[in-house]
Amino acid sequence: MMLRKKFQLLFLLLLISAPLSAQMQWHSPFDDCGDEPFLCGRAWNKELGLNFHRLPERYKEKVTQNVWGLSQLSAGLSLRFTTDSKMIKVKYVLGQKGGYLNMAWLNHSGVDLYGADAKGGLHWVGNHMEWHLSGDTVEFTYRDISYPKGLEGGTEFRLYLPPYNEVKNIEVGVDNGAKFAYKREKRAKPIVVYGSSIVNGASPSRPGLMFTNIVARESGWPVVNFGFSGSAFMEPEVFDFLAEIDARAFILDPIPNSYNLGDEIVKRACNGVKKLRKVSDAPILMVEAEVPLDTMFRKKRCMDYVNGNKRFYEAYKKLRAQGITGLYYLPAKEMNFTEESMIEGTHPNDFGNRQYADAYLKKIKEMFNGMQARGGASRARVRK
Amino acid sequence: MMLRKKFQLLFLLLLISAPLSAQMQWHSPFDDCGDEPFLCGRAWNKELGLNFHRLPERYKEKVTQNVWGLSQLSAGLSLRFTTDSKMIKVKYVLGQKGGYLNMAWLNHSGVDLYGADAKGGLHWVGNHMEWHLSGDTVEFTYRDISYPKGLEGGTEFRLYLPPYNEVKNIEVGVDNGAKFAYKREKRAKPIVVYGSSIVNGASPSRPGLMFTNIVARESGWPVVNFGFSGSAFMEPEVFDFLAEIDARAFILDPIPNSYNLGDEIVKRACNGVKKLRKVSDAPILMVEAEVPLDTMFRKKRCMDYVNGNKRFYEAYKKLRAQGITGLYYLPAKEMNFTEESMIEGTHPNDFGNRQYADAYLKKIKEMFNGMQARGGASRARVRK
Repeated sequence: MMLRKKFQLLFLLLLISAPLSAQMQWHSPFDDCGDEPFLCGRAWNKELGLNFHRLPERYKEKVTQNVWGLSQLSAGLSLRFTTDSKMIKVKYVLGQKGGYLNMAWLNHSGVDLYGADAKGGLHWVGNHMEWHLSGDTVEFTYRDISYPKGLEGGTEFRLYLPPYNEVKNIEVGVDNGAKFAYKREKRAKPIVVYGSSIVNGASPSRPGLMFTNIVARESGWPVVNFGFSGSAFMEPEVFDFLAEIDARAFILDPIPNSYNLGDEIVKRACNGVKKLRKVSDAPILMVEAEVPLDTMFRKKRCMDYVNGNKRFYEAYKKLRAQGITGLYYLPAKEMNFTEESMIEGTHPNDFGNRQYADAYLKKIKEMFNGMQARGGASRARVRK
Repeated sequence: MMLRKKFQLLFLLLLISAPLSAQMQWHSPFDDCGDEPFLCGRAWNKELGLNFHRLPERYKEKVTQNVWGLSQLSAGLSLRFTTDSKMIKVKYVLGQKGGYLNMAWLNHSGVDLYGADAKGGLHWVGNHMEWHLSGDTVEFTYRDISYPKGLEGGTEFRLYLPPYNEVKNIEVGVDNGAKFAYKREKRAKPIVVYGSSIVNGASPSRPGLMFTNIVARESGWPVVNFGFSGSAFMEPEVFDFLAEIDARAFILDPIPNSYNLGDEIVKRACNGVKKLRKVSDAPILMVEAEVPLDTMFRKKRCMDYVNGNKRFYEAYKKLRAQGITGLYYLPAKEMNFTEESMIEGTHPNDFGNRQYADAYLKKIKEMFNGMQARGGASRARVRK
């Protein structure tokens, strides 16, 4: 009986929503984009072309199969557009089925919307559970958008794409007659982050709360995300593609995967940093693996990470002794993790992602003697 | 090639883990329990008997079908046991398949382990992704447990059960020869919480971070969880079962579902509170719905909750005017939500759950002029 009522309601909603959809104008980031799609947060944007991948085809045979596969995920990518529409819809096709036990679908395969205030600071726009799944097609609806005073003529939005799925096609729909225009990424050198599943986007509650997306919002600089879940092993080929990018800074955060490589940690990190330094003077930040704070009852497990971190620090000292300059180091203790920072002991939850972001942002500030303060949205911080 | 290697590894792990499992002793909370199972966090423990439900059979025809169905979920239930085992396994059978888009599996269907220090404060024990699913059977493995100084002879553990699934059967396994004993819930009147999906356990990253479980850990008092996802409508029958419980305090938090009931909010809340007051002098706390902080761009959506809260406050004032004493009120603004507090605009994430817990704990302290401070585990707090 309850179920029948639910179906009746669903049917009614479909009847209502069909004509609404028909009144929308749909915009793909591949429409009228010239030879470069309207996609933010990626390197080689023109060369990569009309897809949502992160590595050019010419790396297919060079990097490991795992890295190549994961480079198809849209982690850290976003769309930027302006509109004055009262309703915004987002429709996309997912490349992969299935999910992850340690992440909400809304994070691994969902999108997350933010709108800019008059000063450019980005503020969250909740979806209030208005999503619809049909096979591999997803639709989010943001209705009754209200525009703050002074922004009634249109505002800028940022839509974060799914960190753990491949997006096959995406369109943004606005009311018929509403203004709409995609915008390109800000003209600024990006911060390039290389790392594990944690950088890849595990496990905050939604894409906007991935720490690399927080860093981009709050530093005001673009971030290019090279998180490769379970596959951050600092192979030489990885540093080949990193070295191609004209970066503001390189951040190397591979230890959550590389921790048990022993001597190889020192060797690969040193070779990699030197390769980057050959082509770039940009500051390089080496980040330790976070250490889970369940040390009281699981000391041995935590020591695995501690030992990996020690070898990474060894590499840092060696590089410094060899005269490499512009090198920075973020020890695990500066992340200020608590017993509530992780979902299972490997991946940071919302707390842990905020703590990662704060630790990164503090170092980035040091690296540049202060930075453009952006964001300003009401945000949660974490302290012990 | 990679896949074949993975299968080889899996096969090896199975070979290793099979004899390990064989050496375990398994303990059900229904074994040697007399006429009352070793289950914590529920009312009518004896009457309910050998299952993991939250309402006695005699309420089946009284409450709505939805409330009855949801009363089978093990939200807020936990096991308490002591052991000195180096390995702890947890094996259970799930009653329901499928999941939720706005919650990680690890929360809705997972378990979460905490161990007590010498003073009784509970500390998180991560599972470090050692879970195994086979059909509807789940197994978690916590290996290499380390016991802090002074607790080598055994310690007390608390295992939180899945908030959004039915547990059909559960056993805790320890090393052959290790000490093991289930313990009953502390002899203390419980705090009884009635509410929506939020109380039911949506959407922190894991069960231990559900705000009702945080409140139990940090107040030192048992909490009985009557969260009914999407079904907290303050029907008279609900107050019938609440009134049966000899509670330390009643907390009424139904507005995230009841917000659009209009006049009925005032009527049902007043009738309910009076029913409780007839049988109990325990303090009663009325809690407003949290208001999503995406107000800048979704003002209208947020006003729905604001309007519901207004009617709830009307009920509070009316009850006070009618001479009802021991009544407390928690306005939404005291939750100190930020734009990062929610997963989609309806359910609090890890930040929001911590903020709920802090707001509840502050009021509970007021209600009892201070309380037994427990916990003390390293924890994350949130500020604006």
